[in-house]
Amino acid sequence: MSIFKINHKSKISSARSGLLKTAHGEIETPFFMPIGTYGAVKTQSSAEIKQLPSNILLSNTYHLYIRPGTNILEKAGGLHKFMNWQNIILTDSGGYQVYSLEGMRKIDSDGVTFQSHLDGSKHRFTPEFVVDIQRSIGSDIMMMLDVCPPGDADIKRWEEALKLTTDWARRAQKHFKNTKSLYGFKQIISPIVQGGTDLNLRKQSAHELMELNCDMHAIGGLAVGEPKEEMLKVIHFLNDVLPKEKPRYLMGVGTPADIVESVLNGIDMFDCVIPTRNARNSQLFSFDGKLNIRNAKYKEDFSPIDENDFSPLSKQYSKAYLHHLFKTNEILGLRIATEHNLKFYIHLMSLIRDKIKAGIFEKWAVQFLQKYNNE
Amino acid sequence: MSIFKINHKSKISSARSGLLKTAHGEIETPFFMPIGTYGAVKTQSSAEIKQLPSNILLSNTYHLYIRPGTNILEKAGGLHKFMNWQNIILTDSGGYQVYSLEGMRKIDSDGVTFQSHLDGSKHRFTPEFVVDIQRSIGSDIMMMLDVCPPGDADIKRWEEALKLTTDWARRAQKHFKNTKSLYGFKQIISPIVQGGTDLNLRKQSAHELMELNCDMHAIGGLAVGEPKEEMLKVIHFLNDVLPKEKPRYLMGVGTPADIVESVLNGIDMFDCVIPTRNARNSQLFSFDGKLNIRNAKYKEDFSPIDENDFSPLSKQYSKAYLHHLFKTNEILGLRIATEHNLKFYIHLMSLIRDKIKAGIFEKWAVQFLQKYNNE
Repeated sequence: MSIFKINHKSKISSARSGLLKTAHGEIETPFFMPIGTYGAVKTQSSAEIKQLPSNILLSNTYHLYIRPGTNILEKAGGLHKFMNWQNIILTDSGGYQVYSLEGMRKIDSDGVTFQSHLDGSKHRFTPEFVVDIQRSIGSDIMMMLDVCPPGDADIKRWEEALKLTTDWARRAQKHFKNTKSLYGFKQIISPIVQGGTDLNLRKQSAHELMELNCDMHAIGGLAVGEPKEEMLKVIHFLNDVLPKEKPRYLMGVGTPADIVESVLNGIDMFDCVIPTRNARNSQLFSFDGKLNIRNAKYKEDFSPIDENDFSPLSKQYSKAYLHHLFKTNEILGLRIATEHNLKFYIHLMSLIRDKIKAGIFEKWAVQFLQKYNNE
Repeated sequence: MSIFKINHKSKISSARSGLLKTAHGEIETPFFMPIGTYGAVKTQSSAEIKQLPSNILLSNTYHLYIRPGTNILEKAGGLHKFMNWQNIILTDSGGYQVYSLEGMRKIDSDGVTFQSHLDGSKHRFTPEFVVDIQRSIGSDIMMMLDVCPPGDADIKRWEEALKLTTDWARRAQKHFKNTKSLYGFKQIISPIVQGGTDLNLRKQSAHELMELNCDMHAIGGLAVGEPKEEMLKVIHFLNDVLPKEKPRYLMGVGTPADIVESVLNGIDMFDCVIPTRNARNSQLFSFDGKLNIRNAKYKEDFSPIDENDFSPLSKQYSKAYLHHLFKTNEILGLRIATEHNLKFYIHLMSLIRDKIKAGIFEKWAVQFLQKYNNE
């Protein structure tokens, strides 16, 4: 049985809207996943994430493996229970995090050995072990261990990464089929297309992974330093390669403009640290563009933070007050900005779905991108 | 018309329960004020403070004067509007903060000159100017500028402090009477009894300030480093000196045990950083005592943080999860612990009032203090 049902297809672009089904509920596509690296979205409780509203969040396999560790997660009965979240959890493969530990990790054909960013202790991830970790976490959607080179890598490195990624995906799937969920619900596993910005390699990666006939496909190795046009070129290209009837997840992307452009190219799922990280750096999103609340011009601006009335917290306060909270390093400021930006992203996705359903997404997208094309 | 009405008086001790009336509503006594130094209680929104429930909060005159400054506060229409708080605000005099700027302030008979802790810029507080600042803030309850020596000062310093405190109180009251509220509601002003731990000086200070016939009395210069028995001795002594029919505010106190002992000695109002500051240092209060959630024994303790079910946030999570949040420096951990401790303090005050009303406060207090006497 398919986990994905497309309900609305654009006649003009590849944008589509549908429903993704998991053991912890359904979610309308396209959607954005708030990131709870250590099993907590920065400053936000699980109930608040649900009320964004979001039926899904992403947590990081590498970080959860380091802290609290699989032993604690298993004793808790999985991450859902540990963090009191009754909805969908997607976990990444840990690959991206491990490869960013430059100088502290060594890849071989069997797996990758690395040192913890925390205490330098040695650890080893193999495709099989990463499945095991995600069994311990109990994520609804698991990712296969991939090899993710930086955006400025050369073709030789992309080729090697692609070869290993396919090999590891086969091993991961085999191990996935030979093991069971620990908590009595069905988990989904997704391979990750690699190949850098080389379209031939991307095609090869996609075709090799499609042979595994998984429920969905993720696109990795983008938004890792390559020029934005290159990223969009790859997404546009893969749109015609990957099977239309399965959900596509563009990992780690992106700005509001990136998301709108990717939806035009048939992407269904997104995650990114931008709304939460930028919030902590005092940047707020709005439909009029971005603003930095630390800017002196907000010192005496008593207009509401949230002109669009979509965030329960930020609509209570003025820009001048939030400016003051950032200047005085008050934690409440981080909360208000984080909730505001998450609400903006969630609201953006809801707008995108509405426009697709109404058959007017492309027209709306052009106007939106005119505002956001310099972000 | 009196701002205070006593509804229940203990027959055994000096404990009493009543109602304090202000321009922004009434509040049952005895009560505890959460501290919002810069116009924000750490990690908490104004709506959350109201829902603790608390009808009152304390903010710091010195800090608000430094940031955002009276200019911004006046343009905002006062602190109530600036921080979106429709309930009672009490502000301290700034005296305590200025005197803790050791080496950066100089007291003369007319006022105190000091350097900002922020940028070293020079400022001057006089009794009149501190009234003006609190007019700009728009606090419901203002404090008069006092001189507050440390707990280990000698009698000569206490005498000097007392003399200035009385002189400044007279000037403050005169200026208070000659000026008006900026925002159209009535403000209350309170003098602060000084005199260190010398009972004769305390008596002299109280009598001189009582001549001003203010609506209430505050006791300052305690919990500033003196032994706990000395503090309790002063509170016990002042109980028979200060007029019974007016509310008494014990500034900056204290632990749960301090509060219970002070209520036995006729204190009605409290404020303290302990619940919020200790929360950020991973210490949680409960009716079984204190616990440090960073302690390794909580790593696998999946029991609820909040066994007593009084905090909406902490009852959602386990001790093991909060332990994990503190280990990973997640802001959510600070929020959960802060809300938990504030709820504990607010709940403690509610219990105290109930026990006074039921005429069983002293019996309950003995049992409570047995648990908390080593805090």
